[in-house]
Amino acid sequence: MSAVSSVITETFNPEVLSPFGGFGGIIRIPQDIPNPVIVSSVDSVGTKVSVAVQNNTLHTVGADIVHHCVNDILVAGAEPLCFMDYVAHADFTADQTAEAIRGVALACRALNIPLVAGETAQLPGIYRRGEFDLVGAVVGIADETNLLDIDNVKPGDVVVALPSNGLHTNGFSLARRIFADIPLEAILPELGRPLAEELLAPHRCYLNDLRGFLSRIHALAHITGGGLLDNIPRSLPDGVRVDLEWGTWQVPAIFELIRAMGEVQEDEMAHIFNMGIGMAAICPLDTADELVKEVPGASIAGNVQASQVEEKIRILR
Amino acid sequence: MSAVSSVITETFNPEVLSPFGGFGGIIRIPQDIPNPVIVSSVDSVGTKVSVAVQNNTLHTVGADIVHHCVNDILVAGAEPLCFMDYVAHADFTADQTAEAIRGVALACRALNIPLVAGETAQLPGIYRRGEFDLVGAVVGIADETNLLDIDNVKPGDVVVALPSNGLHTNGFSLARRIFADIPLEAILPELGRPLAEELLAPHRCYLNDLRGFLSRIHALAHITGGGLLDNIPRSLPDGVRVDLEWGTWQVPAIFELIRAMGEVQEDEMAHIFNMGIGMAAICPLDTADELVKEVPGASIAGNVQASQVEEKIRILR
Repeated sequence: MSAVSSVITETFNPEVLSPFGGFGGIIRIPQDIPNPVIVSSVDSVGTKVSVAVQNNTLHTVGADIVHHCVNDILVAGAEPLCFMDYVAHADFTADQTAEAIRGVALACRALNIPLVAGETAQLPGIYRRGEFDLVGAVVGIADETNLLDIDNVKPGDVVVALPSNGLHTNGFSLARRIFADIPLEAILPELGRPLAEELLAPHRCYLNDLRGFLSRIHALAHITGGGLLDNIPRSLPDGVRVDLEWGTWQVPAIFELIRAMGEVQEDEMAHIFNMGIGMAAICPLDTADELVKEVPGASIAGNVQASQVEEKIRILR
Repeated sequence: MSAVSSVITETFNPEVLSPFGGFGGIIRIPQDIPNPVIVSSVDSVGTKVSVAVQNNTLHTVGADIVHHCVNDILVAGAEPLCFMDYVAHADFTADQTAEAIRGVALACRALNIPLVAGETAQLPGIYRRGEFDLVGAVVGIADETNLLDIDNVKPGDVVVALPSNGLHTNGFSLARRIFADIPLEAILPELGRPLAEELLAPHRCYLNDLRGFLSRIHALAHITGGGLLDNIPRSLPDGVRVDLEWGTWQVPAIFELIRAMGEVQEDEMAHIFNMGIGMAAICPLDTADELVKEVPGASIAGNVQASQVEEKIRILR
């Protein structure tokens, strides 16, 4: 068995019934869920993989895709059951492919998620030389009666900002353009660490932060493509809006640097980036107080207002 | 709602609990399965998508990826529960992306599989101009006690060849090289139809053919990358081998054409292509007789022999 297959099988638990390398991955559904539903999601890391290639560190983006997908189903209130990955490239060596898969497997193992299926493909006619794409799919489980329902969101609820690790996996086309002339190893004074380290900081996973609070949270918004302004409205019912108060949460220095260097409008920034809020939790004030105490860096960043206007989110500066 | 989103929502059934465009797709697990297990698989269409691009027919490969994934979990004895897709490209128009997704949705609808989640990504730094990749992931369900178990395969079992539609989704790198100088619209006398039509014939799905036979089949082998010679051994326990008798199943003309034009060794052909067997079913003779009666084009193509040698498959010519 190759080194990478042993990293994959180390993610397995006794509920996994398929061996490594079968046609499909097989895992038992927990029997203690009265009304089980599957919650699944698929995504890729996007342009961030090009930074990983340039920096010759192919494993860190594994955590990005695992955490991104797990956060996406967490929004419904689901726990991950198993994961699948797909790595495609033009001209990687076997070691490079293995390094990318190892990153996925390590992130899965850290979260106790079996990596039950995967595929690699060498497609030189489709991919650019030296580049690759990393796609992940998560299969999660929840009880239907415990699914988060945005209709529970009410005026008077507050918004808890859960801190991001920086860009996560969005806005990399713009960020790469802005930093095009700066070497990845440069330590910019605003960042205090190499640019590569800042850009490749993995997408943060909120599963362990939020697991104990799901029954008291009314809605979650995972801040990905489209930034704060597009994602928070996805988790709001009709008749309400969210007001965020600028300054109530920590905005990582990378965002101010991008805004200044790229001369990007503030509104556009919030349409592209998470601006420091990787996940927004909408809940009653007492739950919010507990959440802020429990999760380092979390803060109450705004509240829910009754509103009949089309605009579903305002950032008050 | 856009045209493509309505094609997607037409795949939904009353068990789908998530709207189009949510963070994750949600579907109920059937309650009538005493020991439910999830069987999942991920794959891409591979180089065949480049033929689709060249032919300007982006929807047919949707059936390829859906059928490929569904066949992969059928090998375990599982029924598909839901599907996810990922389309990434360098410079597609919105119409082109929609056309690719429409193909996936139509194939899902034909098999009654809700397309519950998906992602599209424009990644011009990663993909070549004009090219795209199409990835699918299927989530299926089975009862643990009904999973196919290759340990049931015994000497005396026979191999039923289920006919392929041609190349399916494998061997396209070689096929494209061999046909590089022939226009896709050319009608080769050996094929009797345009080359494009032959190459793009969708991967056949064996779900409806085999559903009623699963309890009596000992093992299935989905013939994909690695061809007949690599895939049939994946479904054999220790101590047996399969002998296939050349001439007992229909070999589509495309394979002889590729062999002759590319001067490919017969052994290499069977290591790359399905050679006309899209799925091999290993079962007792009485089941095989029924299967052959039921599935047009199916035939008994070989049998299982006790064998202690390393070689797990022979093609007797």
